[in-house]
Amino acid sequence: MADQYAQSGEDSRPTDIPTIRWEEPPEGPVVVLLDQTRLPAEEVELVCTDAPALVEAIRSLAVRGAPVLGIAGAYGVALAAARGFDVDEAATGLAGARPTAVNLSVGVRRALSAYRAALAKSGDAGQAAIAALVAARALHREDAEASARMAERGLALLDELLPGGGHRILTHCNTGSLVSGGEGTAFAVALAAHRVGRLRRLWVDETRPLLQGARLTAYEAARSGMAYTLLTDNAAGSLFAAGEVDAVLIGADRIAADGSVANKVGSYPLAVLARYHHVPFIVVAPVTTVDPDTPDGASIEVEQRPGFEVTEVAAPQVPVTGVGGGMPVAPLGTTAYNPAFDVTPPELVTAIVTEEGVVSPVTAEALEELCARSREVTIG
Amino acid sequence: MADQYAQSGEDSRPTDIPTIRWEEPPEGPVVVLLDQTRLPAEEVELVCTDAPALVEAIRSLAVRGAPVLGIAGAYGVALAAARGFDVDEAATGLAGARPTAVNLSVGVRRALSAYRAALAKSGDAGQAAIAALVAARALHREDAEASARMAERGLALLDELLPGGGHRILTHCNTGSLVSGGEGTAFAVALAAHRVGRLRRLWVDETRPLLQGARLTAYEAARSGMAYTLLTDNAAGSLFAAGEVDAVLIGADRIAADGSVANKVGSYPLAVLARYHHVPFIVVAPVTTVDPDTPDGASIEVEQRPGFEVTEVAAPQVPVTGVGGGMPVAPLGTTAYNPAFDVTPPELVTAIVTEEGVVSPVTAEALEELCARSREVTIG
Repeated sequence: MADQYAQSGEDSRPTDIPTIRWEEPPEGPVVVLLDQTRLPAEEVELVCTDAPALVEAIRSLAVRGAPVLGIAGAYGVALAAARGFDVDEAATGLAGARPTAVNLSVGVRRALSAYRAALAKSGDAGQAAIAALVAARALHREDAEASARMAERGLALLDELLPGGGHRILTHCNTGSLVSGGEGTAFAVALAAHRVGRLRRLWVDETRPLLQGARLTAYEAARSGMAYTLLTDNAAGSLFAAGEVDAVLIGADRIAADGSVANKVGSYPLAVLARYHHVPFIVVAPVTTVDPDTPDGASIEVEQRPGFEVTEVAAPQVPVTGVGGGMPVAPLGTTAYNPAFDVTPPELVTAIVTEEGVVSPVTAEALEELCARSREVTIG
Repeated sequence: MADQYAQSGEDSRPTDIPTIRWEEPPEGPVVVLLDQTRLPAEEVELVCTDAPALVEAIRSLAVRGAPVLGIAGAYGVALAAARGFDVDEAATGLAGARPTAVNLSVGVRRALSAYRAALAKSGDAGQAAIAALVAARALHREDAEASARMAERGLALLDELLPGGGHRILTHCNTGSLVSGGEGTAFAVALAAHRVGRLRRLWVDETRPLLQGARLTAYEAARSGMAYTLLTDNAAGSLFAAGEVDAVLIGADRIAADGSVANKVGSYPLAVLARYHHVPFIVVAPVTTVDPDTPDGASIEVEQRPGFEVTEVAAPQVPVTGVGGGMPVAPLGTTAYNPAFDVTPPELVTAIVTEEGVVSPVTAEALEELCARSREVTIG
């Protein structure tokens, strides 16, 4: 069945624009983003000269995805410091730009701590700004390294669970290089399988309402030459029923201490389908995604996004008529329930793959041990 | 939680255009449809002067939904007969316009049988054409009556399963007056609950890729003054997890002899979620939807629709750039898996509500008995 959908995105071409980078032109330092709201139609840079611009970019999803949000938050603090703005105010704004991904506030805190420590030590704001930038760059580099280690560990897990190879992987939302300092989380695992010839097909959920799967994951899969097929989120059930899915690989925006996983809305239904069909459901995320201060799934704050993301279709080419700037598809006055994330309880998660190790089965104890080991590594 | 989404479509206004009607202007008989591809933005009539035009309207989903497809098929045969076209050729074309809904071929056969019987008896093509039209009109009227009886039986079942009232019903695709000679199937049950003040909320799945929920069910709910809220299909999981769904009500395009239900893609994942959360999953469909010649779910032919329905966003206002006439949202060259339906096995269906009675639990024996009773009623 799968082979009838074979194709490899011959029309796509690689971009040279990195997901996020720091630049220092003569007019002052900037954070430059690849504007993800314009993909795949256009590859456009978004230049942020201050933290509020970066906050707006985070809110509008020009930059999104848990790991890269941490990097963006850290660079945002460094930017405020380098340009002489109020660093604490910038940090507060950045950390609150989106509520669910813990990485964002972790990244902000890391650059802020470096800034404050340097300021306390040297009393020099310029030195402190450099310290914030060094911290942001270290986070960026570490994220790339973590991505490579997650890919390696994830592939080993896949090969263990599915010894035959020829993996048919279902993924949701976007978890590749667009969300990461490196090659991403769940997508990086599929990419590693592809590189060693063991990926038979990547099933890409389109991921309503913002179509990150159709727009971004398909774009990354095409660029990488993977065999991929797009589907509406609700068609995943048919694939499971037909025995066409060997494993589900997703990322995470926050993992509670008990192993509950907040990820893009639509992840939880896949977890229930995977359980019903005895298919492994694997979460791939850096250790920073685990938040020991969030005890369980019920404690995770789920961002509710505007209804117009559902009641209107948004795209640059569409004439502006609706309140959200898009084209209305539902009757005027229709309200929508639009949570950005859902929460999958640990009992439905086969394994959590991090750069420090794989947790399976997913328990609070195993997660705590992993985090403790990670802290030792960091300190050591 | 539900009340924050309260609203009642104050901007919508009722239309006087029926879903389907037969007219006899001086230039010859026609079948007039409300073009559902233009809703909710515009209420436009589509006038079919021959069977091929009706086939095209069926294929393009200008008219869709299992019960009304049967009516359209019957009127199509009557139209070919009345205008002196080849009736057998028209019948073959109509019956094959879409493969999954059994009602379509049942409606075609009914008008064709009436035509042939009258022709054999009278030898007069004009008399035979009248007989075909009488058969089509009878089917249309019977469907309206069946709809009313399904609503009554469905409401009684809801009240039995959920004695507290205040029903929060999740529905998928579109099953109201747009698919029916009357007020529909699943939607008619929700409407009956609304009329007696026992519907707290109708949760409307948007139903990708063609958004029948957003475009059509929301339109019907708004017109009826129901409290409704739209959601992306993948957000249903969050509603179940939050305990916000008391029952799922869907229609059916074909029910196999064993009770397997083919319905709009996305129904099966809802059935799995409903089972996981111990929520009743109720199918509402006329007896004609049951196909004794289809033994089981695996025997149901599921229509595969073009990939551009997924890779492009289609709407009248959108500039034409993609191969399907819409706006590409995925990279060019992306292929899509796009089944129009999925199949829910009988063990996941709490009840099948028909105009002749409710089958619960769903077994081949109970369904057979219901169909036998229905035939007696029809013959008697």
